[in-house]
Amino acid sequence: MSSDADIYKHQNFGNPLGLGDKVALLIVDFVNGFDDADQFGGGNVTEACNNTVGLLKACRELNLTIAHTRVVLADDGSDDNIMAIKVPALKNLTENAPGSHIVERLKPLPGEIIVRKRLPSAFFGTDLAPNFTMRRIDTVLVTGCTTSGCVRASAVDAMCHGFRPIVISDCCGDRALGPHEANLFDLRQKYTDIMTRDEVIAELTARQAQAAE
Amino acid sequence: MSSDADIYKHQNFGNPLGLGDKVALLIVDFVNGFDDADQFGGGNVTEACNNTVGLLKACRELNLTIAHTRVVLADDGSDDNIMAIKVPALKNLTENAPGSHIVERLKPLPGEIIVRKRLPSAFFGTDLAPNFTMRRIDTVLVTGCTTSGCVRASAVDAMCHGFRPIVISDCCGDRALGPHEANLFDLRQKYTDIMTRDEVIAELTARQAQAAE
Amino acid sequence: MSSDADIYKHQNFGNPLGLGDKVALLIVDFVNGFDDADQFGGGNVTEACNNTVGLLKACRELNLTIAHTRVVLADDGSDDNIMAIKVPALKNLTENAPGSHIVERLKPLPGEIIVRKRLPSAFFGTDLAPNFTMRRIDTVLVTGCTTSGCVRASAVDAMCHGFRPIVISDCCGDRALGPHEANLFDLRQKYTDIMTRDEVIAELTARQAQAAE
Amino acid sequence: MSSDADIYKHQNFGNPLGLGDKVALLIVDFVNGFDDADQFGGGNVTEACNNTVGLLKACRELNLTIAHTRVVLADDGSDDNIMAIKVPALKNLTENAPGSHIVERLKPLPGEIIVRKRLPSAFFGTDLAPNFTMRRIDTVLVTGCTTSGCVRASAVDAMCHGFRPIVISDCCGDRALGPHEANLFDLRQKYTDIMTRDEVIAELTARQAQAAE
Repeated sequence: MSSDADIYKHQNFGNPLGLGDKVALLIVDFVNGFDDADQFGGGNVTEACNNTVGLLKACRELNLTIAHTRVVLADDGSDDNIMAIKVPALKNLTENAPGSHIVERLKPLPGEIIVRKRLPSAFFGTDLAPNFTMRRIDTVLVTGCTTSGCVRASAVDAMCHGFRPIVISDCCGDRALGPHEANLFDLRQKYTDIMTRDEVIAELTARQAQAAE
Repeated sequence: MSSDADIYKHQNFGNPLGLGDKVALLIVDFVNGFDDADQFGGGNVTEACNNTVGLLKACRELNLTIAHTRVVLADDGSDDNIMAIKVPALKNLTENAPGSHIVERLKPLPGEIIVRKRLPSAFFGTDLAPNFTMRRIDTVLVTGCTTSGCVRASAVDAMCHGFRPIVISDCCGDRALGPHEANLFDLRQKYTDIMTRDEVIAELTARQAQAAE
Repeated sequence: MSSDADIYKHQNFGNPLGLGDKVALLIVDFVNGFDDADQFGGGNVTEACNNTVGLLKACRELNLTIAHTRVVLADDGSDDNIMAIKVPALKNLTENAPGSHIVERLKPLPGEIIVRKRLPSAFFGTDLAPNFTMRRIDTVLVTGCTTSGCVRASAVDAMCHGFRPIVISDCCGDRALGPHEANLFDLRQKYTDIMTRDEVIAELTARQAQAAE
Repeated sequence: MSSDADIYKHQNFGNPLGLGDKVALLIVDFVNGFDDADQFGGGNVTEACNNTVGLLKACRELNLTIAHTRVVLADDGSDDNIMAIKVPALKNLTENAPGSHIVERLKPLPGEIIVRKRLPSAFFGTDLAPNFTMRRIDTVLVTGCTTSGCVRASAVDAMCHGFRPIVISDCCGDRALGPHEANLFDLRQKYTDIMTRDEVIAELTARQAQAAE
């Protein structure tokens, strides 16, 4: 994509945001149904989910605010939406369906935010943005799946709501690798920083060490 | 992308929405600054803009609700946002800058909605969704630029707000063709129908004829 | 308040909206905790709740869209908000607390929308507006408690989202009668129509009869 | 209203929020049309507007973020909404109408936020909340008119978005004094702190002195 990147560079897109002062970790839809190639998963989703285990551990040790999302639709179809017409299998993700539950290896601890949503963005039709605002979060590390769907929508909305989104590339996965790469390209040019897990852990840890001096 | 498409097909993505009963036309950011390859344009943006002239004419004859968007930031930086850090040239698009004005060939007529926005989606931080809701719109034809930016964000948000988005592929343009195609793929699989200009005009015209019988 | 009303009349406030073509019934927070004067109830809340039984029955017979709200906060405080500082007892309204459950006499039927919320408005931080928009609702009958709190906030937001709000005065209750009356005054002047239960049932029934002719 | 207040006290409403760490001043709709008893003003609106001059001066000296709102509807009716049915005179408040312009004595300085809105809340259909979030505002001083309309709606929405709203009672005015008092009562019990202008200036000044030591 070097020629696409050149066009964006010529128009001065892709400038860095940097980490702000108060960082939250957002884990989008790492639920059983997306960790399963027969339901909504496949591609590099499971690998990204595995990579997120270490990031979650590091963020807990750093006492960051942590938010998880689940896709949950009503059992009786009362909140079916346009997206459920495009993707009818979403209707299987009801409150008690195993597919809608967060994977065991990323199980939320008490006090971590759990957002139920029915649309791509973690922020649309939820009170996550106000919750982050009240906590004075200014930076959101975005992980989860899929890169071309709920991760992108959540990262774009994080930006819209006034937070700096930092997408952690190896903690985001997609059922198909073409869209994974294409969406990381768009995000980096227009909306977010892109960092790897190890880069962001190193920077957060270095900052904490500096603050403790 | 046939293999990516196969994965989506296997998971039963990409089902059609169809046109509803009351259709609006949304023209996203066809302003001078995006019709200029030295500012924000290039690629197939100008071609898409030209294609939209005929669609706008047809929609006016069909008496559809029509909405245009402009990107407008304050002269004094008081409403600069995170996106203006990523893409500083957006700050040039002030109220009176020629670059922020809708191209002459798509000039709005009195009574057509004009939305000023500072973020990708035509719906975020604006009252376009309530305006459409009040008019009982159920379907939004999405055109404009760029496909990988404000068109996609507006189409996704249209869906989130409860409207059926129909992206008109040859009336959407992007400065880079890779992202244009990649985003049409995502939109078709997850969020919107994709039609060409001539297909949608034919269907709308046929319906009107049928209704008049 | 005749002199206050005169001021509004002089400035041409208080014009009627009328019922639109597709009506939904919204029942705000008629849960056990608000039906109990020792928790959040008192005043005319229980009376309003009782009056709503007949309205709900009529709306079901007319096949209207019906939505109920509950206040539900997380057990672990992860979604506590500013309002929970002002009114700490709200934190008792967790998912399984009897106080957060809809009163038995207004128990939702399968297919009726149930909105969990943590803020006054039924629309803020929820996807109720998109759900209504998708169903092409244009008019919302607003009932529930309290008139000076969640009813008012929901009625104002219904208007903001592009729906015509009709507040059903004898199906809204408040722990204190001064605020009940004061808020009906504001709503009538600026935001909504006010009808009694019997008036709205009569009008809806007459319309249905007319449509059936 | 002592008996109403007793009911609220019994249910443990009305707890204080306190000022947070980063305060913004929000001035709602102090425009010429509301400073004129023949248009939308009267009552104590002009007095509240005059009182706000000193508060604005103090907040500027303290380098607080300052936001002003105007009501602005399109000249051609394209964005008329439900509220414009209730209150048709709002349609006179077009971009260039003198009535929609901020009063001379509170004229915004460059860099102060100016929000155009068409609905009661300064936050609904605008990007004010993201702007405040990006600046890490946690407390919003709410002034303007009318107390029973746009001030209340803005204060409630400030709370919903995760900011602590502090309504400055003598810098809020209403065309009718009954609703002014009734709404301050509701706000104090459920949503905001209430302070006078001199109280808030004294506290902000004392904090600054303390921080400078």
